[in-house]
Amino acid sequence: MSVDTGKVVLDISMSLDGFIAGPNPSREEPLGTGGERLHEWGYGLASFRERHGKSGGARNADDEVVAESLAGTGAVVMGRRMFSGGSGPWDDDPNADGWWEDTPPFRVPVFVLTHHGREPVAKQGGTTFTFVTDGVEAVLEQARIAAGDKNVLVAGGANVVQQVLRAGQLEEMQIHLTPVLLGGGTRLLDDLQKANVQLEPTRVIESPAVTHLRYRVVK
Amino acid sequence: MSVDTGKVVLDISMSLDGFIAGPNPSREEPLGTGGERLHEWGYGLASFRERHGKSGGARNADDEVVAESLAGTGAVVMGRRMFSGGSGPWDDDPNADGWWEDTPPFRVPVFVLTHHGREPVAKQGGTTFTFVTDGVEAVLEQARIAAGDKNVLVAGGANVVQQVLRAGQLEEMQIHLTPVLLGGGTRLLDDLQKANVQLEPTRVIESPAVTHLRYRVVK
Repeated sequence: MSVDTGKVVLDISMSLDGFIAGPNPSREEPLGTGGERLHEWGYGLASFRERHGKSGGARNADDEVVAESLAGTGAVVMGRRMFSGGSGPWDDDPNADGWWEDTPPFRVPVFVLTHHGREPVAKQGGTTFTFVTDGVEAVLEQARIAAGDKNVLVAGGANVVQQVLRAGQLEEMQIHLTPVLLGGGTRLLDDLQKANVQLEPTRVIESPAVTHLRYRVVK
Repeated sequence: MSVDTGKVVLDISMSLDGFIAGPNPSREEPLGTGGERLHEWGYGLASFRERHGKSGGARNADDEVVAESLAGTGAVVMGRRMFSGGSGPWDDDPNADGWWEDTPPFRVPVFVLTHHGREPVAKQGGTTFTFVTDGVEAVLEQARIAAGDKNVLVAGGANVVQQVLRAGQLEEMQIHLTPVLLGGGTRLLDDLQKANVQLEPTRVIESPAVTHLRYRVVK
């Protein structure tokens, strides 16, 4: 595991054509058509299975990347739709309890950037969802305090990632580039014309399933 | 150099947000605003300089990738705009002689997919431009014959690449992924919803400047 933590980092799976979700999301397919393919590389890994209460699984280069990310994360930031499970007409109840199971895989404080203030939701296993309504700087500040000397992991969706980038607050990007063309959906790196983001490649780890790209965001 | 040639391959520089040219192309900036940044990793390399009649230059991992590609290429396919130098109002003369110098860097037969039939243009150093008006399959067939046991390199633009992909004719993709966000312009992997392209990562070579991704296109 890297000891180079204490940063605001992005960690997300993206298709080669730039999408983090496919077209036509629905309650049944919250990641859109084909969107699950972006995450298939992870499902069989020991680290992933352990976080979902399962034993066994592959221990390979991909697993090391995931294990490193999990061990380095002290708090998570996400958007309301990632909390509540999608962005369709089924998602109009601001007090819905989300789609996460009783024991979500995060096991750290999660801060949800939203316009709908509400009481925190405590789940089992160390995951608490706290709702922050006063903007991206505020949600990052709360997450940084909670993370201590570990990383704040920005989990998505694209809108939150773009807000963090535009605010100049992202310090590192890890993109799991999957050999998939979705042909439509939600783009990760969109609406950034004025963000003036400068990147420096710092690490590449490859596997037959996915390419893990890491960039430092140059201040 | 790889001896695994005789294929139709893509070899192109792409920004992390998926563009192969920036917004607002002009006669002065045919690659659009910021588009030159996609190619900066290559300009100082020994292989690149040699092809442009210059000595010296860096011999590093990036240079090996370029040298391998050049040595393996027996013919090039490109679109008319790549031949003529842009896609703006200055580009309305179908008989314009292109923007390539007297001794273009290709040094192999180049086949230009176009709607405007015209006589071939022979340049110095082994580069000939032949204009093919009867579609993507025809241009690839001519290029394959010219390439012999070497590769047909699809050089761009995006429209030609997408036609080759939709025709199911691409066998390998090499994308030089640059740590650049252009925020707009021409996307490489667009309009492929019905192409059903399956990819398999086969090689990654990294450097501080660029990440060279290679994929096999699964039939």
